[in-house]
Order: sequence, then structure tokens, then C-alpha cells
Amino acid sequence: MTDGIPFAGEPADSHEAIMRATFRALREYGYAGLSIQRIADEADLSKSTFYHHFDGKEDLLLSFQEFILTEFNRIFQVESTGDPEQDIKTFVSLVLDDFPDCVETPDKNAVLGSYVEMRAQAVQNPDFREKFTETDELFARQLVQIIEDGIEQGVFADVDPETVSRFMITILDGVILQSATRNDNPVAEVRDTIDEYIEETLVLDT
Amino acid sequence: MTDGIPFAGEPADSHEAIMRATFRALREYGYAGLSIQRIADEADLSKSTFYHHFDGKEDLLLSFQEFILTEFNRIFQVESTGDPEQDIKTFVSLVLDDFPDCVETPDKNAVLGSYVEMRAQAVQNPDFREKFTETDELFARQLVQIIEDGIEQGVFADVDPETVSRFMITILDGVILQSATRNDNPVAEVRDTIDEYIEETLVLDT
Repeated sequence: MTDGIPFAGEPADSHEAIMRATFRALREYGYAGLSIQRIADEADLSKSTFYHHFDGKEDLLLSFQEFILTEFNRIFQVESTGDPEQDIKTFVSLVLDDFPDCVETPDKNAVLGSYVEMRAQAVQNPDFREKFTETDELFARQLVQIIEDGIEQGVFADVDPETVSRFMITILDGVILQSATRNDNPVAEVRDTIDEYIEETLVLDT
Repeated sequence: MTDGIPFAGEPADSHEAIMRATFRALREYGYAGLSIQRIADEADLSKSTFYHHFDGKEDLLLSFQEFILTEFNRIFQVESTGDPEQDIKTFVSLVLDDFPDCVETPDKNAVLGSYVEMRAQAVQNPDFREKFTETDELFARQLVQIIEDGIEQGVFADVDPETVSRFMITILDGVILQSATRNDNPVAEVRDTIDEYIEETLVLDT
């Protein structure tokens, strides 16, 4: 990968080329239509090269889950500005903004659509469940850190950071699910409400 | 169907038998593993009987989406008690309670798992997107009605019913997604927070 950015520049190696090809095949055929032949075709690789990297479809999909989660982590990584109110708004904005019509537009929206499709596999697949549980925790910890900073600086109310963080991750998971699977604009409906929730729950009047 | 209850008693006809067989096959093989042969086997019907009812897999899956949404509507139907606070808590409780380990236990949890798997198909399928958009609206309208009743009776604050309702549906969609795809107990983490949100946003002190 190029500086840990899965979609930037030329693929570094055939492993990465296969990951990108899986992403394109998933967009084109859906999860149910993913086949090793299609992915090999997309990557312009032979099936034997494919099997040099992966034992089979199960193995590929676990790697692809990692790949999507890496991309997801990259998208939702907030660099602290020292201003916790700004940081938490940036975090929320990364999920909610530039997000008008998730399924039709490329880039982040395509990644979020793939995220929902992969996440739904966790209903059946315990390895996927374990990984998504970890990732939710990772996001929650990022928020916990921002909230703790805000409390320490005296700009946030003295809430339980864990509780507020988990609630916000639940809200954002709901927005992601809706945005990827509805044909209207669910973000527009809840954008203000989420900002108000942050204002009322966290931000102290100064 | 028996009184509109998809899983109650013997299937009324082979259409319903096929729907139940699809549900069992989905639980057993996952969405990607659904095939007409497997569903016909589960229903103990020949493939030719199957094709008497459905044009093919696409047609079957649209019917099955209807079937799951009917079941979903049945689960989340709140009969008004005349007490809006009670009604809204019942609504939330229908989603959140008896829900400790979604993917391992049968019945409602299996239905919610199937719901998430079907909903993820909407990332690719515009017909599914349209249907899930409608269903979210249906749930939202049910909540709007309860909130309007509460405001009229003077027990709820004078909020915008649409806004609060959409926010709550987003939260509940997030809980459903997490519960069906994590291996811990996400409901336990957010249960109290959701109750507090209702208390603080809606319920007036009397």
C-alpha cells in the first residue's frame, strides 16, 4: 500500500491489485456475485496468480474486510487540533458530510456501501463479527479520547466518555446503514439533530 | 398467511412455504449461498413447483423482502395504550429487549439478522432501496403519531415530532446493525442512554 492509503496511486503489489479488483467487483456485481474468476479478470491476473496469494474465497474475503476497514479507519481518522469541540465535529462531519446520495457516487460513498455489504456478512460469519466488534471499539476509543480531552480542558460537561461515545457510534452506524440503503437523503434529516445532541450533551456554555 | 403472522402455524400455501424455506436457507447458507435448489429442498418442493410461483431468484428475493418486512412490521407494531410515554418505551423495548446475543438465538434475532442481510442488498439493488426507504418512513410515522399524541396530551415537550422520530429510527437502525454483526452485547451499552434521551427530550416533569 502507498503510505497506508489503499486507493492512492498504482497498486504496490499483486496483493493490493487483488484488493482493489475485489472492491471494483463488489461494486459491479454485489457480494453475492463475487467470484474468484471475476476478481482475477478485474485484476488482470490469472487464477493461478490469485491462488498464489489466497487459499480461496474465504481467505480473500477476510483480507478484503481488513482492506476496507483500513480504508475506513483512514477516512475517519481525526488529527487532534487541540480544540475538542472542533475535533468531535470533524469526526461526525467525516461520516455525514459530502454524503448526499451514498450509493450513486464513488469514493467514500462506495467505500461505505462496501462497508455495509461486508458488515452484513458478519450476521453469518463469526470471524467477521469479531473484526467488526473490534473496529466499533476502535472508533469508540477515538471518540472517548476527544471527549476526555474536552472534559479535562473544561469545555465539555462531565459526562461518562464511554457512554456518550458508544451512543454516538450507534447513531453514526445508523446513518451509515440508512445512507447506503435508502434512495432519499437520510443524512439531511438527522444532521442538525446530531449537532444539537453534541451541543446539549457535551458543550458547556462559555 | 395465518392472520398476517408469517411464522405462525402451518404455512397457508406453497407461496408461504417457500418464504419460510427461504428464511431457513438464508439462516443456514447466508445470502450469498441462497440458491433455488436449496430453497426448493428446504420447502420440500420440486423446482418446477417453485417456478410456478416465481419467475426466478430476483422475483423470489423481492417477495422475500416483503415477507421479512411484514414480519418486521408485526414485531414492531405498538398498540396505543393511551399513555404516550408507555407507548414510546414499548416501541423502543421491542427493538432492544430480549435481544442479548442476536445472531446466536432464534426467532426475533434471526429475523433481525435476516433483515440486515436483506437490507445490505439495497446497496446494489434500487428496488430494495425503494422498499427500505418506505419501511423506514413507516416506522418513523408510527413514532410521529405517538409523539404527537404526547404533545397533545401535554405530557411531551413541544418538539418537532418528525425530527425526533427520524433521530430515534436512526439510533434503532444503528442498534440493529450492531446487534446483528457484533459478538458482544451492544444493546446493553446503549439501553440506558436511549431511555435518558427519551426522558430528557420528550417527557415533561409532572
